[in-house]
Amino acid sequence: MWTKEFEKEKMNGFAAYTIQPIGLVHSCFSEKFGIPRQPGLVSCAAGEIALLPEFSREELLKEISGFSHIWVSFLFHQAISDGWRPTVRPPWLGGQKRVGVFASRSPHRPNFIGLSAVRLEGVEKRDKTFFLKISGFDMLDGTPVIDIRPYLPYSDKIDEATPGYADYDLKPNRVVLTAESEAFCIEYENRTGRKLRKLIEEVIGQDPRPASQRKLHREFGMTLWNVNCRFVFTEDDLAEIISCEFIG
Amino acid sequence: MWTKEFEKEKMNGFAAYTIQPIGLVHSCFSEKFGIPRQPGLVSCAAGEIALLPEFSREELLKEISGFSHIWVSFLFHQAISDGWRPTVRPPWLGGQKRVGVFASRSPHRPNFIGLSAVRLEGVEKRDKTFFLKISGFDMLDGTPVIDIRPYLPYSDKIDEATPGYADYDLKPNRVVLTAESEAFCIEYENRTGRKLRKLIEEVIGQDPRPASQRKLHREFGMTLWNVNCRFVFTEDDLAEIISCEFIG
Repeated sequence: MWTKEFEKEKMNGFAAYTIQPIGLVHSCFSEKFGIPRQPGLVSCAAGEIALLPEFSREELLKEISGFSHIWVSFLFHQAISDGWRPTVRPPWLGGQKRVGVFASRSPHRPNFIGLSAVRLEGVEKRDKTFFLKISGFDMLDGTPVIDIRPYLPYSDKIDEATPGYADYDLKPNRVVLTAESEAFCIEYENRTGRKLRKLIEEVIGQDPRPASQRKLHREFGMTLWNVNCRFVFTEDDLAEIISCEFIG
Repeated sequence: MWTKEFEKEKMNGFAAYTIQPIGLVHSCFSEKFGIPRQPGLVSCAAGEIALLPEFSREELLKEISGFSHIWVSFLFHQAISDGWRPTVRPPWLGGQKRVGVFASRSPHRPNFIGLSAVRLEGVEKRDKTFFLKISGFDMLDGTPVIDIRPYLPYSDKIDEATPGYADYDLKPNRVVLTAESEAFCIEYENRTGRKLRKLIEEVIGQDPRPASQRKLHREFGMTLWNVNCRFVFTEDDLAEIISCEFIG
């Protein structure tokens, strides 16, 4: 039986529970705008998780390299100051429909905990710090990581799961670049080894515009690593990258 | 560049982050011993999540019923007093092999946060409390829940994920009951509506014995709801339920 007394007794000691970050995300996504709505949508989004000193020990990662994917639990640190919201408008269905926060993956949730399955590209040690190289993710640069665990196909891959309202055709939009933008990308890639051209195509191809601001020819900008990319949609499914330049 | 200064700056304000439970698990698993190693292994494990008063509002759950499965983030509350361990011996491979805690789903992990995908059977309201009816899970009775979110097939179902060391044949063991145990189950099920017989078969069929204590004919007991079930393995793949009785 569910009673207030039962609840109080069980919750004793957990009313406010303290956690601490174990790592920090280094990501191509320098700002919230444009971040893929879910991990996996942008395969070439590349980054790493730096383990904090207390957790930067080889033994904590023993056998992790055998897994192709890991779950990252993290804090939506930039959402905390805004607070959580009982209902949210997910990007599905043109952002028109309100759903409960527990029926969403919104950052504006109680406890502000995020969860992403990401591809594990490898483990590196530089100086005394261990880094997990990851790709196909949706985390902001500077995101505090609170847990890492393997993706176990036998329990996490649920073939019969139904998608609820998130039954959505993920057809990407077409993306074209001006000649100057193309040239910028080529030079940037040569210098940094970062796949900027492909990242732009994937990120802007999934249409980062807020559902309420989808007017054609309106200019938007987003930052990838240290590059500001400006773009317009000239047709409903065609984005044009009009400039790429270094920020700041 | 990863520097101590960078880290300190970024972590400012997150060094100790406070979270609060949003709900509480009511489960057939009254004790740690025998709990399935992963959710989904025991399809008829049935229970519910009671949302705490602050979160017991219909709007927070709007549209959740369209999803067949949800992710539950919770605290491994019974592991906290023991602390976390850098390496653990997962049940795979006979418990012989040590792996890093971040390469495991062990409860003894930094922050003690657990994650399970469970089947959502429905939503109920009793008095002023909302309950999510769930099945196929691995959570202890009284577990504090810290987040609930939908399982989204398009991002969570990763067909190409590799299982690492957890590449394991999940063939269940055979389970037989004594006539008295069978009779107990039938009466218990008639009175409570709980599928005790099937639960015993599934839970004990996956062999809850610690890897180091697998001697034949050694007696074990485990509690399901308020029933203590005692069993022995009489052959390597055959468990015999020798008694079922009420606890306490």
